[in-house]
Amino acid sequence: MTDDIGAFVPGPRVRIEGRPGGPLAGLTFAAKDLFDVAGVLTGGGNHDWPRGRPIPARNAWAVQTLLDAGATLIGKTITDEVSLGILGENAFDGTPVNVRAPGRVPGGSSSGSAAAVAAGICDTALGTDTGGSVRVPSSFCGLYGIRPTHGRLDVSGMLPQAPTSDTTGWFARDAQTFAKVSSVLLGEAIPTVLPTKLIVAVDAFGFADANVADALQPMVERLGTLIGNSREEIMAPQGLSVWARAQRSLQPVEAYATFKDWLDHGNPRFAFSVAKALVMGSMTPQADQTWAALMRQEVRGRMKYLLPAGTILCMPTTPFPAPLAGQPLSVLDPLRDRITCLCAHGGLAGFPQVNLPGAVTVDGLPVGLSILGPRGSDATLVAVARALEAANK
Amino acid sequence: MTDDIGAFVPGPRVRIEGRPGGPLAGLTFAAKDLFDVAGVLTGGGNHDWPRGRPIPARNAWAVQTLLDAGATLIGKTITDEVSLGILGENAFDGTPVNVRAPGRVPGGSSSGSAAAVAAGICDTALGTDTGGSVRVPSSFCGLYGIRPTHGRLDVSGMLPQAPTSDTTGWFARDAQTFAKVSSVLLGEAIPTVLPTKLIVAVDAFGFADANVADALQPMVERLGTLIGNSREEIMAPQGLSVWARAQRSLQPVEAYATFKDWLDHGNPRFAFSVAKALVMGSMTPQADQTWAALMRQEVRGRMKYLLPAGTILCMPTTPFPAPLAGQPLSVLDPLRDRITCLCAHGGLAGFPQVNLPGAVTVDGLPVGLSILGPRGSDATLVAVARALEAANK
Repeated sequence: MTDDIGAFVPGPRVRIEGRPGGPLAGLTFAAKDLFDVAGVLTGGGNHDWPRGRPIPARNAWAVQTLLDAGATLIGKTITDEVSLGILGENAFDGTPVNVRAPGRVPGGSSSGSAAAVAAGICDTALGTDTGGSVRVPSSFCGLYGIRPTHGRLDVSGMLPQAPTSDTTGWFARDAQTFAKVSSVLLGEAIPTVLPTKLIVAVDAFGFADANVADALQPMVERLGTLIGNSREEIMAPQGLSVWARAQRSLQPVEAYATFKDWLDHGNPRFAFSVAKALVMGSMTPQADQTWAALMRQEVRGRMKYLLPAGTILCMPTTPFPAPLAGQPLSVLDPLRDRITCLCAHGGLAGFPQVNLPGAVTVDGLPVGLSILGPRGSDATLVAVARALEAANK
Repeated sequence: MTDDIGAFVPGPRVRIEGRPGGPLAGLTFAAKDLFDVAGVLTGGGNHDWPRGRPIPARNAWAVQTLLDAGATLIGKTITDEVSLGILGENAFDGTPVNVRAPGRVPGGSSSGSAAAVAAGICDTALGTDTGGSVRVPSSFCGLYGIRPTHGRLDVSGMLPQAPTSDTTGWFARDAQTFAKVSSVLLGEAIPTVLPTKLIVAVDAFGFADANVADALQPMVERLGTLIGNSREEIMAPQGLSVWARAQRSLQPVEAYATFKDWLDHGNPRFAFSVAKALVMGSMTPQADQTWAALMRQEVRGRMKYLLPAGTILCMPTTPFPAPLAGQPLSVLDPLRDRITCLCAHGGLAGFPQVNLPGAVTVDGLPVGLSILGPRGSDATLVAVARALEAANK
């Protein structure tokens, strides 16, 4: 554990001791700078965001819940601008250091939270996941991370982006800590009963880089052994790229609606790529949105069909490990598009997903294996994570 | 003359004495922060622009020409970001104070140059005009200002935007100073022979706010008396809005081409409105560009037809005086569009244009009358400005 927090936080230092004696006593956490902390301006990853806004009077629900459970807040962490980003490079606050993949991005938008946990700055950290913002940095930084069932957690005090997809997530380095924190935030005990069926999403593995699929293969086999019954299935019969297209026709539209008044009255500064995403959101044809809403129903139907009670699905969290930092947009844009193909189901369908760390590519870079379960099965996914880690020891 | 330059300059102070004994000895000037000054980073109105760029080794042609003629450079002035703006509000460097219209914008993109001259900080100042960036602030700040014949002046050391429309212009408070500076930069004496025919562009006057047309009417009459022979004509038979549409289908495309590599490699920050203009430039359909190029030929043909040797045309420079500063984009965007209707011919056809100050609306706000002449008649337009001022005394 180090105290060098500078590479992960955007601005003023903040520390709030957890309530003594709770289940998380002795643990430290950080909160993505989209979560309100009483008395501290919420930065939102954009230096024009706080301008003219009030200092929050109370903590966000997730922050307060962790404090009440005994965890100590040790800082707020860098985020992609208003959570619009998947790689973790921020023109205002810098790129948090990914200690697991030096010279590479940490992933975003919960970049600082993931990077700080990976670096041992804190035990856990709050993030948000709308289009992949917990899942991607979990994969790139080699962490446990969860995108809970959409709508399950109270998001009050969390800066919204696209409310029909927004979730609160969190990270940890080990499954025991991950289970403790998850139990508190999910408000239920982590079960000991595990699912009995495993689906291996062959289209998703086929879409990932071959070295990623290879790196994940041993973990898929251990998972199969743990669950006992596995089969291969196509996850997205319509195409992962079709799902991604639907998500790209909905999420930026919602994000634009969220930020429209601010754009109009504040004309805020953004990195070009972020502004471009908002402009695209403002220009999406209604016909595209209408189609995307129908496809969203198809995705929900497909995920529900694939994931009855007692079944989980596994897939690569990202198609590749963390890209090099500082690359041109013309290199990064196609990478973003590929990431979206493996993340779109989250925002579209809202099923819970946990990233399992441990695998590394031949280059030594972390890549994550995701497990998904039916709505509400969040704690069961955490239980699988814990059991798999225990089985490895 | 005051020394309070802070409201007009973006960054480090710079001063270079003019060569003794020249025709502009004793005069001071400022240069829009798009012009290179040796030893000083060119800011470009965007804090991410200078990053990684070399410090200029030599002065821009226009800067050197004024120094050689004896004028003293007293500073670099705030510009809209990389000259993309017509109102003069800059999220990085602030909005230069328009002493002639308190609480209102100075106009852009040569905002600081115009505002500094209006405030008496310097005698003249260099600006650039691609889509109206000298003409509009001249009108809003009550100054003489010129957009020279396109291609006439050496633009070396001037940050480009849309090269087929970019020009170097300048401002002055009085016609004598304006004539002196113009003679130096145009490289010719200001003639004494005046044009013999005046066209009053009835469509442009009809397009302007009624109070602007009313405010300009006495000046139009004095100009008619001075020239001796005036008639009314439609300037844009296809429609001023059609000319504006053509310009909007060409200039942003060219601007995007100019800045494309920087956007790609630097992902720089911009105010949302500026980024949006660049995104639109990147998305303009080829069919729109093709049509716009044809309309540009029509505009050139029309202007050539209207302006044989010895003829000038007059029109309102802007459809209204300076709008209030700090308004939402939803208010400003339609204003920008209307300004473009009266400015599009400049970038499309490249004919010289001079703004004549002196008129004020019933609210006491400056509005300018523009005179245009055939290509190469820049000095004649300056002569008209001088003669009209003299006739007023």
